[in-house]
Amino acid sequence: MAFDHLGVATTDADGLAGRFEMIFGAPIAHEEQFDGMDVRFLELDGGYFELLEPHDEGPIRGFLDSHGPGIHHVALRTDDIDAALDRAREVGVDLVDEEPRQGAWGHEVAFLHPSSTGGVLVEFVAGE
Amino acid sequence: MAFDHLGVATTDADGLAGRFEMIFGAPIAHEEQFDGMDVRFLELDGGYFELLEPHDEGPIRGFLDSHGPGIHHVALRTDDIDAALDRAREVGVDLVDEEPRQGAWGHEVAFLHPSSTGGVLVEFVAGE
Repeated sequence: MAFDHLGVATTDADGLAGRFEMIFGAPIAHEEQFDGMDVRFLELDGGYFELLEPHDEGPIRGFLDSHGPGIHHVALRTDDIDAALDRAREVGVDLVDEEPRQGAWGHEVAFLHPSSTGGVLVEFVAGE
Repeated sequence: MAFDHLGVATTDADGLAGRFEMIFGAPIAHEEQFDGMDVRFLELDGGYFELLEPHDEGPIRGFLDSHGPGIHHVALRTDDIDAALDRAREVGVDLVDEEPRQGAWGHEVAFLHPSSTGGVLVEFVAGE
């Protein structure tokens, strides 16, 4: 598995994208509206920042209300997401998504519950 | 720049290392005591989880007290940390470390203040 992206909750996706491009030299690789959010992917070598600005109620809005802006989750890329979920299940991880579903950018994703992973919200992303 | 590691605050570095090895297939690449903490690096393709268990007072203990266990910071690897700090300074980023200092695993590191990066605590790490 490899780091795919770091999910960041923000109240200003375009403003933060501009800042991250200046600071880290990370250009916008993809942008879309997904699940009531403006989403911006900024490209690093081998991975991305995923900036999430919610416009509707939902978990990212709830995170912003309780924690403020910042890191929300980490996504790990795996070439066999079904096997990754099976292994997590076998070692007793509580799964948010029992099966992969479509996430941002059309990717197959599944989240693990942070209570099983030391408070770290982990997303599996299918990909090479 | 590339993701180097994700810093995770924990009250049980060895226990979490064992869980992450089972769940993610991430073996321990390096372990040490650093700055009053037990530190465990777990290897992924191209990056690491850095598990930080504090035994003394300090920022990680403070983070655990206020937030509980979870993601503390993200580290980005750069082949020119001085140039990276210069660029951050030029665009008005508030630096925690004005110059690189020695971090865990003997690496040259420097932190940026999260107030300049959307609430994300970013560490630069010197490396190829």
